[in-house]
Amino acid sequence: MNHYVSHLEAAIDGTVLPFGQLANMHNARPIWVRYHLDKIKSAVTPAQIAARAPSLWRYRELLPLPFDVEPVTLGEGMTPVLHCARLGKQLGLSQLFVKDESQLPTGSFKSRGMAAAVSMAKWLGVKRVALPTAGNAGGAAAAYAARAGLECFVFMPHDTPVVNQFEAQLYGAKAFRVNGLINDCGKIVKDGAERMGWFDLSTLKEPYRLEGKKTMGLELAEQMQWALPDVIFYPTGGGTGLIGMWKAFAELKELGWLRGATFPRLISCQAEGCAPIVRAFDKGERFADLFPNAHTVASGLRVPVAVGDFMMLDAIRASGGKAVAGSEAKIGAWMQRASSAEGISTCPETAVCFEILERMVAAGEIKPDARVVVFNTGAAPKYLEAMPYNLPALDKDRVDWDAIARA
Amino acid sequence: MNHYVSHLEAAIDGTVLPFGQLANMHNARPIWVRYHLDKIKSAVTPAQIAARAPSLWRYRELLPLPFDVEPVTLGEGMTPVLHCARLGKQLGLSQLFVKDESQLPTGSFKSRGMAAAVSMAKWLGVKRVALPTAGNAGGAAAAYAARAGLECFVFMPHDTPVVNQFEAQLYGAKAFRVNGLINDCGKIVKDGAERMGWFDLSTLKEPYRLEGKKTMGLELAEQMQWALPDVIFYPTGGGTGLIGMWKAFAELKELGWLRGATFPRLISCQAEGCAPIVRAFDKGERFADLFPNAHTVASGLRVPVAVGDFMMLDAIRASGGKAVAGSEAKIGAWMQRASSAEGISTCPETAVCFEILERMVAAGEIKPDARVVVFNTGAAPKYLEAMPYNLPALDKDRVDWDAIARA
Repeated sequence: MNHYVSHLEAAIDGTVLPFGQLANMHNARPIWVRYHLDKIKSAVTPAQIAARAPSLWRYRELLPLPFDVEPVTLGEGMTPVLHCARLGKQLGLSQLFVKDESQLPTGSFKSRGMAAAVSMAKWLGVKRVALPTAGNAGGAAAAYAARAGLECFVFMPHDTPVVNQFEAQLYGAKAFRVNGLINDCGKIVKDGAERMGWFDLSTLKEPYRLEGKKTMGLELAEQMQWALPDVIFYPTGGGTGLIGMWKAFAELKELGWLRGATFPRLISCQAEGCAPIVRAFDKGERFADLFPNAHTVASGLRVPVAVGDFMMLDAIRASGGKAVAGSEAKIGAWMQRASSAEGISTCPETAVCFEILERMVAAGEIKPDARVVVFNTGAAPKYLEAMPYNLPALDKDRVDWDAIARA
Repeated sequence: MNHYVSHLEAAIDGTVLPFGQLANMHNARPIWVRYHLDKIKSAVTPAQIAARAPSLWRYRELLPLPFDVEPVTLGEGMTPVLHCARLGKQLGLSQLFVKDESQLPTGSFKSRGMAAAVSMAKWLGVKRVALPTAGNAGGAAAAYAARAGLECFVFMPHDTPVVNQFEAQLYGAKAFRVNGLINDCGKIVKDGAERMGWFDLSTLKEPYRLEGKKTMGLELAEQMQWALPDVIFYPTGGGTGLIGMWKAFAELKELGWLRGATFPRLISCQAEGCAPIVRAFDKGERFADLFPNAHTVASGLRVPVAVGDFMMLDAIRASGGKAVAGSEAKIGAWMQRASSAEGISTCPETAVCFEILERMVAAGEIKPDARVVVFNTGAAPKYLEAMPYNLPALDKDRVDWDAIARA
């Protein structure tokens, strides 16, 4: 056997689907990858994994790519878990950690999903991929497609951050700006699948980006000596990471690798200008309505409708967590506050998490000694539009020392 | 003993200087850190290092920070060494590798030097640092100073890439734009040392950024199973990385950790608009004159005068390598060519390296089966100005499929 996948499974109704051929969705909803966890349990130990190279591919038994197939890799992972004593103290937390995904290839967590999805697509014979993107996914898809030698089409809202536009062209993708939102771009990708012969790499519309994102949870668990934190703050647009981590924890529990029986509370963080999951959570619903007039400078959260809504909501509720909307007005200030407190390049989506964290600590919903992990999902400079900046000018021939001293 | 440093040594005349107190230069020239390599040899083995966490601090015995002092860290290193089969084939090389430093904190190799220098400065009691920067060093210094809780002043040429301006403010540095070049900014830092009470973190004007950069060479050696490559292409502005790697190789040789007796040829790559080291190399001189009217879009190479010029030129000559100037006009095209061939986010300085590599292969100076390593020193999106980009627009209500098909 050269992989441990048992089958694919429709998330909406449990239908068993075959592995080893191209798959998108089932009944317009996502598909899970299921593994022979009992066989993995006897095949590998945490100690063996600890001796492997620091890459998300160290969890190879828990990934779908057959062992005799070379992954498409840019050296992704592991990313550090950084203790943030100074910022924690400001917030009243003694055990605040940031898992810094900005250090991945292309500067965001999107690389994890694309490493897995592009590796699988290439193995299954795909030559051309396409996707809509709110920002970082386009750059990551373009980069991994380039590495794999695949053709890549990227469709992004016209007001996507300039860095995301730049990087899509940098990696040779055929990239377009669309006068709409990510769901409008998604419709183009769907409509073009037959006409253009591309494989749809959209969030949760194929099964493997989820498996790549799952490695955030695997890494976090290993880095915390297989004891999960008490609370996770995670910015959710399409939600693959949140769903993937929850799947990771469940698989690790079944493998018997976890110390301690409790799972973390998942706090799904959205921006008030686009908070469909928060609305559904508050209304007690399993499916989320399209959020009208979506807008936020946290472009990764500008996802008004998500095919994985019920998977997110199921995970949040099972964890005892909640979905919360952050203040749009505080995003730029929190980017700078978090970045300057700890030196971690904090993206707007993560700024939203910190703002929510501050309120929840103040409300007594997070205990001062709780082990809290905030995911920093991307590098701040990918969002030049999100934080105003303006450096004062100095004349080299008449240096204004008073201005320097006053700064 | 809680470190293996034997002493500091003036690079220009070998004067022995004490370790454990603040040091800048000696006779206006840089200072080496020297170690008790014999003691390190009996204290640690490559196998022990291989079992440590993937960070540049795994080489702790070869770094100056005492073992009982916590490093100032953002989780820097290790960075991947990626085999580039597709780009290699285009260039006629079977063993082309890129060491991708864009995956470090703040997206550039500058983080290595700053991790070491800020850790040492904090240990030695510094509260306030300052530096001039051509681009990425400012962001890295600001981030590590923030992580350390130090105050940071950054001075950059007025036309420094916008992302570098953004990130300096993001991390809370007091950052200024100066109507001059990096040496003009350096003069402000020098002049202000007494008045403002800051410690000068300029390239090679303190001994420890060099030690941090040295870890590029240590990592590369370990990742290539302690067998060094045949040729290294490295973009040289201030030159700390080139000098640091050469020092790393010498230390590893003395430790007896290297397989094979030969060191790589070092190819120092500069841009034709600012090539002081190339001029000095061609003239057979050990010191380089100031390069007048320096200009290049590869902002990291816009260093018209370097205090470590003789250290660079000594290393290049000892290696049997050379210094070569790349074509300014080809930088943008090579950024896109390399990035789209391999998915690696290729900065303009590294684009210069590839252009020179292509010419040297064509001239027969690099054999087709040579093991060639090119350093990618930063993430391409930090240089929005260096590559033109323009995404075509699509109307979501009337999708122009012909335009998509023609792309």
